[in-house]
Amino acid sequence: MPPQQLGRPTLASIAAAAGVSLPTVSKVVNGKTDVAPATRAHVQQLLEEHNYVPVARKAPEDLLVDVVFTALDSPWAVEILRGVTESGLDVVVSSQSRSSDTDWVGALIAGGRRGALVVTSRLTAADQRRLGRSRLPVVVIDPVDMPGQDVPSVGATNWAGGLAATEHLVELGHRRIAVIGGPQDYLCSRARIDGYRAALERAGIAVDPELVRHGTFRHQGGYDQTRALLALPEPPTAVFAGSDEQAFGVMEAARQAGLSVPGDLSVVGFDDLPMARWSSPPLTTVCQPLADMGRLAGRMLHELIDGGELSSQRVELATHLVTRASTAAPRR
Amino acid sequence: MPPQQLGRPTLASIAAAAGVSLPTVSKVVNGKTDVAPATRAHVQQLLEEHNYVPVARKAPEDLLVDVVFTALDSPWAVEILRGVTESGLDVVVSSQSRSSDTDWVGALIAGGRRGALVVTSRLTAADQRRLGRSRLPVVVIDPVDMPGQDVPSVGATNWAGGLAATEHLVELGHRRIAVIGGPQDYLCSRARIDGYRAALERAGIAVDPELVRHGTFRHQGGYDQTRALLALPEPPTAVFAGSDEQAFGVMEAARQAGLSVPGDLSVVGFDDLPMARWSSPPLTTVCQPLADMGRLAGRMLHELIDGGELSSQRVELATHLVTRASTAAPRR
Repeated sequence: MPPQQLGRPTLASIAAAAGVSLPTVSKVVNGKTDVAPATRAHVQQLLEEHNYVPVARKAPEDLLVDVVFTALDSPWAVEILRGVTESGLDVVVSSQSRSSDTDWVGALIAGGRRGALVVTSRLTAADQRRLGRSRLPVVVIDPVDMPGQDVPSVGATNWAGGLAATEHLVELGHRRIAVIGGPQDYLCSRARIDGYRAALERAGIAVDPELVRHGTFRHQGGYDQTRALLALPEPPTAVFAGSDEQAFGVMEAARQAGLSVPGDLSVVGFDDLPMARWSSPPLTTVCQPLADMGRLAGRMLHELIDGGELSSQRVELATHLVTRASTAAPRR
Repeated sequence: MPPQQLGRPTLASIAAAAGVSLPTVSKVVNGKTDVAPATRAHVQQLLEEHNYVPVARKAPEDLLVDVVFTALDSPWAVEILRGVTESGLDVVVSSQSRSSDTDWVGALIAGGRRGALVVTSRLTAADQRRLGRSRLPVVVIDPVDMPGQDVPSVGATNWAGGLAATEHLVELGHRRIAVIGGPQDYLCSRARIDGYRAALERAGIAVDPELVRHGTFRHQGGYDQTRALLALPEPPTAVFAGSDEQAFGVMEAARQAGLSVPGDLSVVGFDDLPMARWSSPPLTTVCQPLADMGRLAGRMLHELIDGGELSSQRVELATHLVTRASTAAPRR
């Protein structure tokens, strides 16, 4: 037996021996069906030859990781969670709001899990230093601020999404296009608004500061900002709403003002939550692959727990525009 | 020291000594803030006197329980999950769809956790016998079939909700009222439709079998059944849609048929998901306290793990009608 096989075999060593990726081995171990039969047979043979013992079966806590949400108050969370649970990790779910008066970073370090996924949270430089010292493997999903280079993170191409949403409206013939971002200091919001600016500039349309608004990413923010936009002397004919939930607020403000969507006002969201298909009319929006982000973050964490190295500390998954029925050419 | 205090103290024995409820002790142990200061001080003193060691801190897996969803594909799931995480348990989340080709009941029993919450799943009599033999504490949330008497479960008052939704439409003056249930064999769906029948009978309105439909509880079911209803010689003026997601499908079918909601068609949902407030117009619906159901199920499981007895094996939490803008008096 070659020396590197004397120790307890890991998923990574099996993957190397089989000449396949770590996720593929993980899928076989976890009984997933999306692996080619020949590959599955080869990996299973190696697992048996190496006496691989699936740690999750022998000691259930062994592959347990924490998943910390800022708050479990959005359908957004379940999309990410679905992806994470599909990555082969056993996930213990908590929210910071549950322990808002406690030191959640300290609790994470003291918790005794194998790793942690932190979703849409604000990690201070001090938090990042503490996590680094603890040697607890951590991957951040959609960080509020750009984390330090030594904190692995997964996000989406927010700038490209903002660009695609706005170019779609420009192509339909709109010139008075408003944008409603989220909280001003959210990195993803700034990137989406910068994509909006870039699309207008490419089309030779001057950015009107009156049409650049900041909301909360929640329904009320879209509603309030749209009321203000519709009260302008020259209101917009289209709104890029920054998030799906904000887009629903835009649609409700339009309805209350007696405007039809998309006849009088075109609306584009961002996220493509399941309910983007359920609004009436169905929402044109930028698809952010939330489940894929969760799945990838889970695999990166799995790799770190298994002692592997990440090929990149920051991965952004592609967004793409989904055209439904809330956008049309302007009336005039 | 009295004999009953010689063993390792439990949350239940501390609760008994303090004269407070188990959830109150759990809150103090978990650092929650919604406990009166005097109560907190008294409980903390007892915890110290009895040398209570919080198991979750010493061995994180000790209060770990599984939460199994049929599928993590609905915003519904996150509402229940929020409640469960607030019950003081550490929850490991999984979905049956993740392991559809494996024996999930067997995996649950072999998993080595302290207990399990099973959400909206079909438990066969054989499954229930196996779970009973395993002595794994299990609580079922919103069971598809009524579980055997020895399986504790939490639900909502579905019949009363169906009654309230339909009485609201009757009071507005509607006489042609349709109902769209979920799958025919779902217990909660049958209860909601029976509530609908009871409301019509109380108002002296004959139940027209043409107006009683079965969908899927999903958007497409509401859409398809509404298309069929609107094609009737005498279409309904109001629809009780059985679920919020189905109600959104009803609204979209109405929009495509050129009907306004609520002007031409009133719509009532069931669930009161966050997005019921986000539809345009906002949806009148029956609030099912999903987070409270999750919280209560978590507390029941906590009690079982702690060796306590449940005062009732089946608890139904109250539903109530939330009137928003999708219902109005009929035109004619």
